[in-house]
This record gives sequence, C-alpha cells and structure tokens, in this order.
Amino acid sequence: MHWTQRTLTLDPHPRGVHLITDTVTGAVPELEACSQGMLHVFIQHTSASLALNEAASPDVRGDLERHLNKMVPEEQPHYQHTLEGPDDMPAHIKAVLIGPGLWLPVQDGALALGTWQGLYLCEHRNQGGPRTLMLTLMGPDA
Amino acid sequence: MHWTQRTLTLDPHPRGVHLITDTVTGAVPELEACSQGMLHVFIQHTSASLALNEAASPDVRGDLERHLNKMVPEEQPHYQHTLEGPDDMPAHIKAVLIGPGLWLPVQDGALALGTWQGLYLCEHRNQGGPRTLMLTLMGPDA
Amino acid sequence: MHWTQRTLTLDPHPRGVHLITDTVTGAVPELEACSQGMLHVFIQHTSASLALNEAASPDVRGDLERHLNKMVPEEQPHYQHTLEGPDDMPAHIKAVLIGPGLWLPVQDGALALGTWQGLYLCEHRNQGGPRTLMLTLMGPDA
Repeated sequence: MHWTQRTLTLDPHPRGVHLITDTVTGAVPELEACSQGMLHVFIQHTSASLALNEAASPDVRGDLERHLNKMVPEEQPHYQHTLEGPDDMPAHIKAVLIGPGLWLPVQDGALALGTWQGLYLCEHRNQGGPRTLMLTLMGPDA
Repeated sequence: MHWTQRTLTLDPHPRGVHLITDTVTGAVPELEACSQGMLHVFIQHTSASLALNEAASPDVRGDLERHLNKMVPEEQPHYQHTLEGPDDMPAHIKAVLIGPGLWLPVQDGALALGTWQGLYLCEHRNQGGPRTLMLTLMGPDA
Repeated sequence: MHWTQRTLTLDPHPRGVHLITDTVTGAVPELEACSQGMLHVFIQHTSASLALNEAASPDVRGDLERHLNKMVPEEQPHYQHTLEGPDDMPAHIKAVLIGPGLWLPVQDGALALGTWQGLYLCEHRNQGGPRTLMLTLMGPDA
C-alpha cells in the first residue's frame, strides 16, 4: 500500500465557512501520482470543523453559518461553560454536530468529488487563530 | 492489501429517508470474500446524505425526516440562497449535519453492523434525481 | 500493511456524554507499536454515538447533553415511534446527527489528537445498557 501522513497549518480564518479544497490538495503533492486511494482530512481542534458541500455559491456558506447560529445560539441559560466567551460553547456543539474528519475518494490523481462538492473549514470561533489539519493519503500500490 | 473502488448510481428516491443497505452490499460482490475489511460509502452530492440507524421500524425514518424539517425549516428570512427553490438551502444544511460518508466494518464476508443498524439514504430534495455513490472496500490480504 | 480489528464492550453509562479515550486506546495494545496509522472507532448501536471534543472541562460535556435535549426534545407531536419510551426516538435522531464512527490519526505509538481533543461516548438513552464498539487499527508496514 502507499501511505502519506502530514500536517498542514491553515492561516487564521474569520468566523464562518470557508472553501479549502485547493489548499488541502496542494499540501499533498503525492495525490497527483495516486491512481486510486482515499484522502483523510482531520482537524486537531474542538471549536472548528470540516464539511463537504456546495462549492459554487458563496450564499450557501453564509446561510450555513447563519443557520448554525440559530440552531446553536450564544448566551443560553443552560450553558455552564462560559469562561472563554459567548462564542466558545456554541463552537464546541457545532463542531460535534459537523465533525472533525472526512474521507475523500481519490481517482486518477485527483479527488473524486461530485460536481458541486468542495471542502469547507467551518470556523466557529470569533478569533480561532491558526488551525492544524492532519492529512492522510492512502491506497493500494499502483 | 485488497482494494476495490467503484461507483453505484441509485434510482431517484422521494424526499425522505430510505434503507439502502442491501442495494449497496449487492453492488460490491467482493465483500463476500472479504474476511476482514472496511467498506466506505460516499455520496457525491451536496443535498443528500448518508446515515446509519434503526433498520426495523419505518416510523424511525419518518420521524427523522419530520424532525429534520423542524430543525432546518424552509423559507427562513436568513436564507439568501433561494434561487433553486425552498427545499434547496435546507437540503445543503441537512447534508452538512448528517454527512456524505460512512465507514462500515466488514468481517467474514458481511457487514459487521449492530443488530438494528441499517444504511440510510437521506434524500433532502423534493426532486433529487439519481444519486451517485462511490464505494471503497479495503482490508488486509487474507 | 498492518491491520487489527476487535470488539470492545463498554459497561453501561448513564445518559449523557462520557470521556472514553483511555478505555479505547487501552483495548488496542498494538497501538503502542504503530509508528503511523489510523484507528477507527465504531459503535454498533442506533441510540448512542461517538464524538471528538474538549476533554478538559466536564462543563462542556454537560452543556452538550443539555443542548442536544433542546435541539431534539422528547414528546414531540411529530414522533410516531413512541413504543420504546420518550427517550427512544430523540436518541435515534441525536445518533444520526453525531454519527457512529470516527477515524483518529496515530503517530509514534499514540493518537495524534489536538491538545484538547478527547473521545466521547454520547449515551442518548436513559438505560442504554452495555455498548459494543468495533475498533480497527491499520497503517503501513513499519
């Protein structure tokens, strides 16, 4: 089998949803030589998450951020974990709902995504800072 | 290692939650010869998703669809992505929450699921059309 | 490649969110000899789920449980699957939203998690009983 595992640190992003497909694939040059495989993208944080969704319209990303804020509002009386600011506990809940990792199929040297699929960094904190990803590419020997 | 990767196109399903376990396993005949492995099921779309849950009672699938519609209602004032109809933006949000892919353990030529677990296609659009899955079976050599 | 797949049965946990990182890693002693790999943790049930989030503050786990109960309340008029008690259908919905499985990167004989990340068992039933996990460790030959 072939196997590559490395880290990628993303520059700070503002709160919201951001397309990072090209940044991630650019960090794994071995992908171009991979005829069949899978790429795992994993975020080593608890207040940001990774999703796969519509890459064409920025409106989708804005609507997703706005709807997450309705489903998981700040300043709720049932929150006890409040010391790190009003955006902190909602960020943890959103990260649990969306999740920290995704496997993306690889074929013929590129991600085998649907026409409209792109990889999202969902930054749930107001000042999340840099975020570290662990990327793992694997598959059978060519 | 052994490795099989292929696509499966599902016929159009009405909006709601559908059991597809047998359809998916039937599309990977190599599974019967797999003593240990993992099967990845991935949907190449942004308005449908895959889940694993209770396979026995159709009520569970109906309740899940009804509750998703409460959590992510149509016609919200904070939606800006509205050109493709009122069911489109909620479909993207539901797909992010549930996710596009699942890994299912394989043992002795069959999925090693719990007694009640079955694979769901969650069709979030009113007219979703055919949906393409990418199936990847892998594991150690026997 | 190296490959290990085994089951682990967790003792019954009360409804809520519980840290199980050490229990899981302790059940896979091969992890200590794994220089690079991935560990898949999978729950064979439909009313409990697995998440990765903040391991330090117990408040985060309590707030998550309380917020899930707001997002997916009991006794809703749109629930038809009610025979197994008021906590049953909400448990299925929460399990779909959070998910049954996670892949955790492994490096140098330990999980390569972020500083604050820990593995959660989310027990959504009042009397969930023992829960069975399927653990799969794999990676390239050393």
